[in-house]
Amino acid sequence: MNASLTEPADALAIATLRGLIMDGVEAAKSGHPGAALALAPLGWTLFRHFLRFDPSTPEWPGRDRFVLSCGHASMLQYGLLHLSGYGLELDAIRRFRQLGSPAAGHPEWGHVPGVETTTGPLGQGVANAVGMALAQRHLAARFNREGHTVIDGNIVVIASDGDLMEGITYESSALAGHLRLASLLVFWDDNRITIDGTTDKSTSEDVLARFRAQGWATLDVENGDDLSALRAVIDTASRRDRPTLVRVRTLIGFPAPNKQNSPSAHGAPLGSDEVAATKALMGWKHPPFYVPAEVAEEREQLRSQGRALRAAWAERLRAYRTAFPELAAELCTAFGIDSTGQSSPSKASRSSIHDAVEQASVDSTAPHPLADLAATTAALLDGEGKLATRQSSGKVLAFLAERLPSLVGGSADLAASNNSYLKGQGDFVPTEGPQGSNQGAVPGTVPRNIFWGIREHAMGAACNGMALYGGVRPFAATFLIFSDYMRPAIRLAALMGLPVTYIFTHDSIGVGEDGPTHQPVEQLASLRAIHGLTVLRPADARETAGAWSVALTSPGPVALVLTRQAIGPVNGSAGASVARGAYAVFESNKPLQALLLATGSEVDIAVEAAATLDAEGIGVRVVSMPSWERFEAQPAQYRLSVLPPAVTVRVAIEAATPFGWARYVGEESAVVGMRSFGASGPGSELFAHFGITADAICARVRERLVAATSKASP
Amino acid sequence: MNASLTEPADALAIATLRGLIMDGVEAAKSGHPGAALALAPLGWTLFRHFLRFDPSTPEWPGRDRFVLSCGHASMLQYGLLHLSGYGLELDAIRRFRQLGSPAAGHPEWGHVPGVETTTGPLGQGVANAVGMALAQRHLAARFNREGHTVIDGNIVVIASDGDLMEGITYESSALAGHLRLASLLVFWDDNRITIDGTTDKSTSEDVLARFRAQGWATLDVENGDDLSALRAVIDTASRRDRPTLVRVRTLIGFPAPNKQNSPSAHGAPLGSDEVAATKALMGWKHPPFYVPAEVAEEREQLRSQGRALRAAWAERLRAYRTAFPELAAELCTAFGIDSTGQSSPSKASRSSIHDAVEQASVDSTAPHPLADLAATTAALLDGEGKLATRQSSGKVLAFLAERLPSLVGGSADLAASNNSYLKGQGDFVPTEGPQGSNQGAVPGTVPRNIFWGIREHAMGAACNGMALYGGVRPFAATFLIFSDYMRPAIRLAALMGLPVTYIFTHDSIGVGEDGPTHQPVEQLASLRAIHGLTVLRPADARETAGAWSVALTSPGPVALVLTRQAIGPVNGSAGASVARGAYAVFESNKPLQALLLATGSEVDIAVEAAATLDAEGIGVRVVSMPSWERFEAQPAQYRLSVLPPAVTVRVAIEAATPFGWARYVGEESAVVGMRSFGASGPGSELFAHFGITADAICARVRERLVAATSKASP
Repeated sequence: MNASLTEPADALAIATLRGLIMDGVEAAKSGHPGAALALAPLGWTLFRHFLRFDPSTPEWPGRDRFVLSCGHASMLQYGLLHLSGYGLELDAIRRFRQLGSPAAGHPEWGHVPGVETTTGPLGQGVANAVGMALAQRHLAARFNREGHTVIDGNIVVIASDGDLMEGITYESSALAGHLRLASLLVFWDDNRITIDGTTDKSTSEDVLARFRAQGWATLDVENGDDLSALRAVIDTASRRDRPTLVRVRTLIGFPAPNKQNSPSAHGAPLGSDEVAATKALMGWKHPPFYVPAEVAEEREQLRSQGRALRAAWAERLRAYRTAFPELAAELCTAFGIDSTGQSSPSKASRSSIHDAVEQASVDSTAPHPLADLAATTAALLDGEGKLATRQSSGKVLAFLAERLPSLVGGSADLAASNNSYLKGQGDFVPTEGPQGSNQGAVPGTVPRNIFWGIREHAMGAACNGMALYGGVRPFAATFLIFSDYMRPAIRLAALMGLPVTYIFTHDSIGVGEDGPTHQPVEQLASLRAIHGLTVLRPADARETAGAWSVALTSPGPVALVLTRQAIGPVNGSAGASVARGAYAVFESNKPLQALLLATGSEVDIAVEAAATLDAEGIGVRVVSMPSWERFEAQPAQYRLSVLPPAVTVRVAIEAATPFGWARYVGEESAVVGMRSFGASGPGSELFAHFGITADAICARVRERLVAATSKASP
Repeated sequence: MNASLTEPADALAIATLRGLIMDGVEAAKSGHPGAALALAPLGWTLFRHFLRFDPSTPEWPGRDRFVLSCGHASMLQYGLLHLSGYGLELDAIRRFRQLGSPAAGHPEWGHVPGVETTTGPLGQGVANAVGMALAQRHLAARFNREGHTVIDGNIVVIASDGDLMEGITYESSALAGHLRLASLLVFWDDNRITIDGTTDKSTSEDVLARFRAQGWATLDVENGDDLSALRAVIDTASRRDRPTLVRVRTLIGFPAPNKQNSPSAHGAPLGSDEVAATKALMGWKHPPFYVPAEVAEEREQLRSQGRALRAAWAERLRAYRTAFPELAAELCTAFGIDSTGQSSPSKASRSSIHDAVEQASVDSTAPHPLADLAATTAALLDGEGKLATRQSSGKVLAFLAERLPSLVGGSADLAASNNSYLKGQGDFVPTEGPQGSNQGAVPGTVPRNIFWGIREHAMGAACNGMALYGGVRPFAATFLIFSDYMRPAIRLAALMGLPVTYIFTHDSIGVGEDGPTHQPVEQLASLRAIHGLTVLRPADARETAGAWSVALTSPGPVALVLTRQAIGPVNGSAGASVARGAYAVFESNKPLQALLLATGSEVDIAVEAAATLDAEGIGVRVVSMPSWERFEAQPAQYRLSVLPPAVTVRVAIEAATPFGWARYVGEESAVVGMRSFGASGPGSELFAHFGITADAICARVRERLVAATSKASP
């Protein structure tokens, strides 16, 4: 492969970048030099000649977004951020992959300014980018006005063979092509090498034809070192009316003379000999981590260019504010910026997105629309009688849809079942318009409902991208059982702390006839096991209102776990108590002998059992426990008051695996739950069949009281 | 859409089938009539005129496999099985979707003869079928000889729009196209309707172009009611050299006059009025669940045709046995059949596949190759010193590869990291040969290593299909963190009880520099939460050998959870004890005051802590606990002896979330584990950073001893 680095300044910067990549990986004694080296010309061309950003204000909303989906090539991004004037200093790069260095093994959002999303698990980055483009589409329609384009930008991705082989990329690309998300520009690093060898061991797909079949434009660069070809293709791609895939043929590890084009360059340091040989070939005679003065000068140019770009945008914003003062105020609130377009210092933190989104729709003359949400919506729901919590959720959502314009999302083809469609709001539809145009800006047609298709994984990851873009509060809906399909994306939402709301309905054997493939058993436990995810399983309409209130004020992701079947209302339930995670809904008027802990549809059953036990003279309390995570976050005093340690006879009731409940009831045998997969049959029969009944609860309590008594007086 | 049902016998059977579908759904008052009705002509054409099966011997290995990937259309399959002479009687169909009926909401393997896999979660069926084709490819190469084709067959799938939108289908189709799995024939029910409405809300993909880009042949039927077109396309597809997708344009709900071509036909009964209108239109004047005598006669013909097909195969087998007696014996053992090709009655059960596979390679003159596997391989590994359990696993696998020819599998592009490549064995490679041909039959070139590509979900589901095909024992390898990508397939393996082995390496923060995206924290808990899955986390080489022994003798799926980093050997460890789930590896020579429970890499650390505590005069036992599930399966006496209830001071050590451990140690505060996501840095530093050290364990034990003492004597 012949290099044709025509511009001396670019050639020098690329050599510097390659030096940093090799030196960083060698110092770490671990890392992935191959793709980073080969992609240096593309990366530099994008950062120097295409992407719009201001390194002094990385969260400037008018910026382009860059996603390195192949996160293992992280040194490419760190090198670029360093050379572009972001605050990533050489010290961090010298400590690449070391504990405490922001230059972690894979790019982590919130650790390094300029990293737009945490990548590494393949395919997630592409789907995040699709979400960013969706957020931009929505915001452009909501805010842009004739002659006033305040929302636009490119969403640029570099993706590897591995990214493209993952199903999530296929799913998200299908949606992007369908909706003609023209802001999306994906560069495919076609290096024909994977960890196991050459790609021809596992794929022979015509990738460009595949993307064209999904409605994308495709372009080609035969030599990833050919700067003029790269610049030409980027120019072409800038005038696009649909998402674009650019194949860039590279040699992994280039220009390392002995390891290029070999899997050995993928995931291990080149070694000092090969680094020396490579630098000799490059004519690079500098010490490690060297940045020539000319390249440092490029950095200053990028800085001043960034300031100018942002100033021009601020000027546009000023004109917009004059013409549309209310919209401008909304926009600034949504992105946590002041009216000059400057991030307020307190907002420039990791939490800026959720802080901003919480307040996205605050009208300064009205009370916060979410103030007393639990009470307000619970009042709306009162008097409904028995109601599936998915229906309660739908009613809350209808209420919110009017008041929280930043709420954007949809279902993976189960909108009616998930009660997740925002009635009266616009839908995302394919559009022929060029990117950045004022799509669907007629009031009332702002797209807010996303038809994700039967693509749960893409839905989850795109919601992460929407949250990362900012200005929107995304939600995703499907059956609880299919949370498994999107689990890697949920984990990343938890890892990043993104405010995504999951509406998971059909939450137990209550699903009924669809049978064990559709009946969650272990999903509650496996979601609760994810650090940073709040799981809420409300017991009736009031608690559902409270759960939504928690969801919309949580900094991180929240899963709402809702019934298919009608339940409640539970006497004594309170929406406002959901935020505390657990509270008593039934209390005997006699000394407390036993605690019943239940969630969701089983609170009803527990209360029924409690009434029987109470009539027998047994003092019992029923604790509704919609959220373990919220409960654990309460002060010890509160927790001990709800679950007094002296009351050791405890039974938990949940139509799910007992796994994890020993935390609260000592042993899993104290759980009335599911000890197998479910079965096909009417839901009510299944509860009886699997022994999740008031009778079973009473029997379990009586047994355990006897055992406790005999233990106490042997 | 004009029907052109040219053959009266077929037309009558299809009308009967449609009647059964409507009647079944109406009786159940729930179900999915739309796709089932529309696909009746295709289903009948396949069963009557194409598929080779013997309803009297559903597990006959020479049969074609039929997979209804859109499992919600289950009444189509039940109707077909009834009309084809399988043992699914009208009583079962009358009780469609009722508790105890084999005719469950979605087709469940093991409940109904003729159902080849449990479907419902979309996309899984297509990927299962790819696995079946892989198993057949392997077995054909292993057993077929010039002039003796004993392994062949069609793998036929009906898939919906939803199936094709799921990423898992994309992944598995890419592999099928690459490997030219010509036995695979997928019919795409192109009805342009999903639950949320018309497919144009969420997709505008050129599906045929997409499949062609993946190396498939594509064919087209413009009218799914056109029997001659269906027969013609099937004839064409029979002479194929690659996997084939047939687009069949249908109208969902056809011929229901008012609900056809509408989402309302998808997931709810038509209602009695519409059923009546439909039957009137069909000229169907019979009572519900009516099967005319002429159609019953067709069933007899299918039965006798099936007997003849199987007899012909048995004849081939006889000739084969004469020519290749040893191979024939192996083949019969692999499939659990006697030498006449007849399933032995004891094998015709749900367990036949794993029973058979266990014995697949039994040479009658030698002892069972797995007898004393744990001891034999542990001996091989002894004296290795510190060794990553992934490396120990690799050595066991090398030992097994020679002795267990039915072991077939691979890694999702991490073969070297997972130590999962079977050295000296053949690879799956693209082949130009027509299906059924004697591919790669030269000894030593039998394909056993699958390069799955970066496609974890397809890998998981294809392994299910391989296990279902029979004759092989599949394994799948990736990093533990990416078990999340394949979780829906793992769940189905557990639900069906399929003997799939997962090799999950890089099992904790021990991953090191790759950071939190690659460090499992909640994966152990979330896998343990799956009913029917055995999770094994061995502490050293000996336990790894024991873990493989458990994996290969388990009827259901087993996850081996292995380290990246070198660990062990643990004094006192024993491969044979792994099967008991937990056992003591260290015991103080003084009265027992505290128990340390640990798994995998943390057993080492626990033993180090125990030595310190013991030196301080504290009586302590270290329990290595490689498998919770195996331990729970032991008699109470054993469990109580390992974990004496009187010893209440217990500390668990696991570099993972404490979630679930309260079961054994009372409360999660007694766990030395991970209370956050991980971080990027050298693995050894991370253990110190996150406080998973011998010092921390000792401190925790001392604290808890003090607390217990003060509680005992207030």
